[in-house]
Amino acid sequence: MVKAVWIKHAAQLVTLANKVTGPRIKEAMSDLAIIANGSVWLEDGIIQAVGTTKELEVEYASRATEADIIDATGHLVTPGLVDPHTHIAFGGSREREFEMRLEGVTYMDIMNAGGGIHATTRMTRNATEDELVRQTTIRLDSFLAHGVTTIEGKSGYGLDLETELKQLRIMKRLQKEHPMDIVPTFMGAHAVPTEFKGREEEYVNLIIYEMLPVVAKEKLAKFNDVFCEVGVFTPEQSERILEAGKLYGLIPKIHADEIEPYQGAELAAKVGAISAEHLLKASEEGVQAMAEKGVIACLLPATALYLREDAAKGRAMIDAGVPVAISTDCNPGSSPTTSMPLVMNLACISMRLTPAESLCAATYNAACAIQMEDKVGSLEVGKQADVVLWNVQSYQQLQYLFGVNHVKTVWKKGMQVIG
Amino acid sequence: MVKAVWIKHAAQLVTLANKVTGPRIKEAMSDLAIIANGSVWLEDGIIQAVGTTKELEVEYASRATEADIIDATGHLVTPGLVDPHTHIAFGGSREREFEMRLEGVTYMDIMNAGGGIHATTRMTRNATEDELVRQTTIRLDSFLAHGVTTIEGKSGYGLDLETELKQLRIMKRLQKEHPMDIVPTFMGAHAVPTEFKGREEEYVNLIIYEMLPVVAKEKLAKFNDVFCEVGVFTPEQSERILEAGKLYGLIPKIHADEIEPYQGAELAAKVGAISAEHLLKASEEGVQAMAEKGVIACLLPATALYLREDAAKGRAMIDAGVPVAISTDCNPGSSPTTSMPLVMNLACISMRLTPAESLCAATYNAACAIQMEDKVGSLEVGKQADVVLWNVQSYQQLQYLFGVNHVKTVWKKGMQVIG
Ligand SMILES: [Zn+2]
Ligand SMILES: [Zn+2]
Repeated sequence: MVKAVWIKHAAQLVTLANKVTGPRIKEAMSDLAIIANGSVWLEDGIIQAVGTTKELEVEYASRATEADIIDATGHLVTPGLVDPHTHIAFGGSREREFEMRLEGVTYMDIMNAGGGIHATTRMTRNATEDELVRQTTIRLDSFLAHGVTTIEGKSGYGLDLETELKQLRIMKRLQKEHPMDIVPTFMGAHAVPTEFKGREEEYVNLIIYEMLPVVAKEKLAKFNDVFCEVGVFTPEQSERILEAGKLYGLIPKIHADEIEPYQGAELAAKVGAISAEHLLKASEEGVQAMAEKGVIACLLPATALYLREDAAKGRAMIDAGVPVAISTDCNPGSSPTTSMPLVMNLACISMRLTPAESLCAATYNAACAIQMEDKVGSLEVGKQADVVLWNVQSYQQLQYLFGVNHVKTVWKKGMQVIG
Repeated sequence: MVKAVWIKHAAQLVTLANKVTGPRIKEAMSDLAIIANGSVWLEDGIIQAVGTTKELEVEYASRATEADIIDATGHLVTPGLVDPHTHIAFGGSREREFEMRLEGVTYMDIMNAGGGIHATTRMTRNATEDELVRQTTIRLDSFLAHGVTTIEGKSGYGLDLETELKQLRIMKRLQKEHPMDIVPTFMGAHAVPTEFKGREEEYVNLIIYEMLPVVAKEKLAKFNDVFCEVGVFTPEQSERILEAGKLYGLIPKIHADEIEPYQGAELAAKVGAISAEHLLKASEEGVQAMAEKGVIACLLPATALYLREDAAKGRAMIDAGVPVAISTDCNPGSSPTTSMPLVMNLACISMRLTPAESLCAATYNAACAIQMEDKVGSLEVGKQADVVLWNVQSYQQLQYLFGVNHVKTVWKKGMQVIG
């Protein structure tokens, strides 16, 4: 039996309970619904009450002895962060490749020597389930330590039926064994495996006719994601894969317009994707189409930094009426980080989101991007008791004092997991 | 009486004891002198022995009970990091200004409303010594938690005799009260205070004839730094101030070529500065002159990120034979961060330093930039027992898994201060 938790006197209790449901755009992203001298009561894994400390003292004073009382005087309190885009369930590590590239070895030489995504695919195929669980747990622990309590995870380093299922199954297992909430996405269309080089259509058919049916039957994924990019999957192939997924009840996501403009944003709107990812090179028409259809832009400024690319035009997308979420894109090639706080900072620094928009993009809108906003992403009665207490006084300080993990305490479903 | 510490079985013990003394260039920056299965014995605040675990077991087995034994199996161990450029002793906080700028208010409007550096000057002038100590201690604690055990700190938010002395005195006080080693720099020439607008020469004279003598007499600073920049101090004014400082035994440093090319690197070489800072817009001739004179380039990639500028050409500078150090530039305007690990990551990502060069730039070369390399910056017998145990296996992982503070344990002069 877990004891109740009573957080009192938060300098800023950022609830994000601003009554706007569904992906938030424009002004709604900035309305954090902050309660000064705020208080929450967590019990049975659920938020039971939210209000001023004064209000909760009226309601809960008689039950004070039943709770761990947390004095949050001078501290910011927010919902647990949500990371809506990760490739967390992979095998191996590629730091030596990182070093070689900085020593002057070209990416092509590394690829030709079996490096890059193919190295991770090989290491993921070769890893046992237990080994994958062990490696993924290290990353999940780090995410929790950085205030993330809900995460999306993609397959896509198997690129064969067996390993794609293995990645999805270990996420299902970790959902039970680890405090983190893990929302699984099937991404067989992450790359064309080397053994299908020159036979890309065959691999697309393998995804559609062999992988998707099993993933759906075993209920291993909620979303279906495709890397639509020049040299990877064409818009036509991407559309076929996403439409096939829809027949199996899988909601489309799409890695769109990351490296070259390729009509990815337009395709996201056309197929009714819940979100489109990256969007560094998205066209204005594509962004407009996303705004009209309410497709969430899931922006990944840490990846842009790591690849030395200009970040996506987050400011312009919000101004155009697109709901924006942000994410680490945690993966071994282009974003080996587990820090959503850094991503929030970069959303301000590189994409010119305001501190408030950045926090909404990492909580409520991120939850919408994985259709979890009924359970997480804001502090409201009846939602999961996922709460972060920060070592700063305000959400403004959280974004301004950059590059530092200001997490002090994390509760997941009312259980203290960090701090 | 502090117990001895015996660290054993480090996966990589990065000693940086490669025998090259003085600021390191080119290949010497990459030679980390790593000991596999490494071990160190810390006692009386000093490193007493460094070697393989096997070697130290021969020497110290009989004294094992006298030490805290740390099993570093699977962990990276390095010298404590050194941050050779901070403005740490300031008053107040400017997160609201950060938010306003992202909400669309221009920098000029903020300046005209009394914001920017003038706001920090006002808040620093108004703060009591105790209040400044309290605020600075929070930052020093964060630096320690990020693996930094030696830091340089500049005055320059006083801009009048009294407050410049106050900043330097609180650093002297903190040198005694806080575990951190703090190396003080006088920087009266950080900006022209508003009350001297239009009378810049008078302020230069105030620095030279009133501030420098007192700073020197009270032995409050080791270095003398100038912000040589269009609209701040001209190269001629900078030279006068730095040459005057030399007469008082203060070693020159120079904020050079940050915003516009302004012959700052050339001036650093001319006056024999120990280091030149920023250098985003340094000329090739200036870099060449620095290489010839052995002036250390102190590069600040977090500041460049925060200001959305291209980082300094660190790779080219190393290739040109300049010794490179890196730093947070911790300050409330252009780099409100306390994370040297992030700065090391950015040195790789944005400036194309290799992981090894980046670590040398944050330890040994950083120590050289504040003339502390006889005491800190490498793990060698007789040096201070400043050691960091990291939650990664290798220096490559430290740089690759970016945006995360991987510090596990920090010892300062043999005392465990973090972990
Ligand atoms: Zn991705
Ligand atoms: Zn500076």
